Amino acid sequence: MNHTDPEQDVIIVGAGLAGLKAALELKQAGKRVRVLEARDRVGGRSMPGEIAGQTIDLGGQWVGPQQTLLLEQASALGVKTLPQHTAGASILSLDGKRSTYKSDIPKLPFLSLMELALLERRWNKEMRSLPDSAEPWLAAKAEQWDSHTLESWILKHVHTRGAREFARTITRAVLCAEPRQVSYLCFLEYLRQGKSLETLIGTEGGAQQDKFAGGAWQIPHRMAEQLGDAVVLDSPVQGVEQHHDSVSVSSNGKIYRAHHLIMAVPPVLAAKIQYNQPLPSKRSALLERMPMGSVIKIHVAYERPFWRQRGLNGAVVSNDRAFNVVFDQSLDDDGMGVLVGFMDADHAIAMSATDEATRRQQAITDLVHYFGQEAANPIAYVEQDWTKEPWSRGCYVAHTAPGVITSFGDTLREPCGRIHWAGTETATQWCGYLDGALQSGIRAAREVLER
Amino acid sequence: MNHTDPEQDVIIVGAGLAGLKAALELKQAGKRVRVLEARDRVGGRSMPGEIAGQTIDLGGQWVGPQQTLLLEQASALGVKTLPQHTAGASILSLDGKRSTYKSDIPKLPFLSLMELALLERRWNKEMRSLPDSAEPWLAAKAEQWDSHTLESWILKHVHTRGAREFARTITRAVLCAEPRQVSYLCFLEYLRQGKSLETLIGTEGGAQQDKFAGGAWQIPHRMAEQLGDAVVLDSPVQGVEQHHDSVSVSSNGKIYRAHHLIMAVPPVLAAKIQYNQPLPSKRSALLERMPMGSVIKIHVAYERPFWRQRGLNGAVVSNDRAFNVVFDQSLDDDGMGVLVGFMDADHAIAMSATDEATRRQQAITDLVHYFGQEAANPIAYVEQDWTKEPWSRGCYVAHTAPGVITSFGDTLREPCGRIHWAGTETATQWCGYLDGALQSGIRAAREVLER
Repeated sequence: MNHTDPEQDVIIVGAGLAGLKAALELKQAGKRVRVLEARDRVGGRSMPGEIAGQTIDLGGQWVGPQQTLLLEQASALGVKTLPQHTAGASILSLDGKRSTYKSDIPKLPFLSLMELALLERRWNKEMRSLPDSAEPWLAAKAEQWDSHTLESWILKHVHTRGAREFARTITRAVLCAEPRQVSYLCFLEYLRQGKSLETLIGTEGGAQQDKFAGGAWQIPHRMAEQLGDAVVLDSPVQGVEQHHDSVSVSSNGKIYRAHHLIMAVPPVLAAKIQYNQPLPSKRSALLERMPMGSVIKIHVAYERPFWRQRGLNGAVVSNDRAFNVVFDQSLDDDGMGVLVGFMDADHAIAMSATDEATRRQQAITDLVHYFGQEAANPIAYVEQDWTKEPWSRGCYVAHTAPGVITSFGDTLREPCGRIHWAGTETATQWCGYLDGALQSGIRAAREVLER
Repeated sequence: MNHTDPEQDVIIVGAGLAGLKAALELKQAGKRVRVLEARDRVGGRSMPGEIAGQTIDLGGQWVGPQQTLLLEQASALGVKTLPQHTAGASILSLDGKRSTYKSDIPKLPFLSLMELALLERRWNKEMRSLPDSAEPWLAAKAEQWDSHTLESWILKHVHTRGAREFARTITRAVLCAEPRQVSYLCFLEYLRQGKSLETLIGTEGGAQQDKFAGGAWQIPHRMAEQLGDAVVLDSPVQGVEQHHDSVSVSSNGKIYRAHHLIMAVPPVLAAKIQYNQPLPSKRSALLERMPMGSVIKIHVAYERPFWRQRGLNGAVVSNDRAFNVVFDQSLDDDGMGVLVGFMDADHAIAMSATDEATRRQQAITDLVHYFGQEAANPIAYVEQDWTKEPWSRGCYVAHTAPGVITSFGDTLREPCGRIHWAGTETATQWCGYLDGALQSGIRAAREVLER
């Protein structure tokens, strides 16, 4: 039953951006590598799709000017960026009331806006007190901040309805989790990794400034091409055995052997693998406490981007609708109109339990609420439910509840014998983003090369 | 490669008390059952051991008068109870200061004691507002309570150092987790399941009133004897496939088939199994968010129970020592003296990373602090690190961080097609105890019989 693969220098588990980047770095350094991927495709949380003939990203798609690793990688592979469409007003739907606004500041009551400004200042200040080394457990106030959920922190420190709801909506949008599920320390570290709240949620100058012509999914595809048959698809890893001078991996009854291993999958999946030499209790505890966010990504296509002619840029943020974040995904003013958006956190869980027809109906109802009757008759609908993906177990990224970072966090990037850890969750900048995945792959490859 | 077992009516995964009880109930109803157990022994979190010739429990051991299912089961199997030794004073070690006390109320400053009394009253009142059906997500204040960690709740509502530290120490002792890791709603539901704080932490009249002569581990052993070769050891389950009219389970390359399946393992282990028909997103999310507590159980034996002659009952509670909870485990006044205790939560994680010699030294140092120099020279030391058990992943029980019960909790006992759920975590009374495990097995068996 056990066919044995030729021995490699390094086995990499997971052909997402982190794993592919680690493999390319190692290959470039002259190492023999094998990348084992559970799915029948590469890319992980980056994934191609199509709506009415237009190629789209069913996974991660945007890039900001600070994400230099991703920009360089794309450029080296000949994948060009194009700007996210922003001309026009955005829509805010808050507690059933729809309003439009320009700039990045939604229309809120005066007191809420005042408090929001103070809140942003406070978050930026607290986030800057976290170490640049991405070791939030070392922060002076780590234990205090890690005792609170973002929700209990909001209830204590934020008083206007508008500012509270804005803070909650942001959490759902960036972490795909409810504010009561996320440690305040985890939230602050996520802000720090994304430079600031403005950068994280912004378009121009922020993390949604640009996208990739033809789709971000081309990046992992082209990286995989450079690796050729070093990448083996349809090979979920069941077990990892560490020996005196090697490590072996079992997948579908086949044994792969190497000197080192890089685990480049989400923590929740790394936790499901059997290790002959059990991971340290602290490390296992961490892996078992980093659940993924919940999100369904939805594209809806129309004959024309009708909202543009009405002075709208297609962007929506809502605290009261299931289809709660929307962006314009059209290629130009004259062609087909495409909106892309998300059902986040509890909305995703609830809608995942229904069927596609129900979700489609919900999305369209919400779009009619935002954009009017013209939104009622799309020509196509495409959805990607990340909560149902067995080889991601959610998106965009893992988060931690209170008490996890401070009790177990310092094992995040700590090698366990011959096992090294990659994946966007282990990044020190842009955790949760394609850029962070690349960074983690480079770091893990370097660790192995330095041994 | 795939040898197929004869088709059964029900496959049960896990031969802990829950799985064994379900199997016995089904067998009694005339059903053909197969129990698949990953370990080379039955009992799960109940496990035999030995120290200097005395048989001991390395897992669950106590029983309270309210735990009627466990008492009846033991009685039916001829396993007798004997009282936990309580004569004498208990020791409290708080912030480096050691004191002794009688009754269940430790010596604390007057204001702390006053606040503690109020706190207990408040907890009992709030806990009584949770539904008896063990559906805490339905409580009127569910979302509010599930937004707080126990720690953020304590910081908000408890003001004296003594009462705060007492509340924190209790959490570590009963859930083997840090107060900042546990949802306040989860904590309240755990109190409700255990009747009240007094019952949960009490000896006389409480959950530690009695133990089992010869050990609680005899109960699952004798239950397994009644099942004969229906129990198959060394059979970890890798995959579960649901078909139109059956369910099949793969274990070590062998296929087991039945009409229904009862999953009687901790949630974190159920999450690691591959399901051909993916579990609903909400259910998977719950399983991935129920980590186990962390605890190391330690026995230390002496020539004589010397503490008894000095008016001490051997019981210790501490907020400042790694070996933070201790009880008398001696069989009588004249024979060998045995102390049993626990390193809980962060202490367990930290000590698990050291070696046995270091843990032994730590335990003895702490016992000398509590009981004086006579404790310095034990004749034997036996430890059981539950954080390292691959087929439990911790003890005593799973807990939930904020936002888990309210977002995902209602799937806790909900069958998924042909899969039914058992295990002490699914009990409606005495979750976390052997009694709750039995109850869950009875309930799951009944569900299957009613289909």
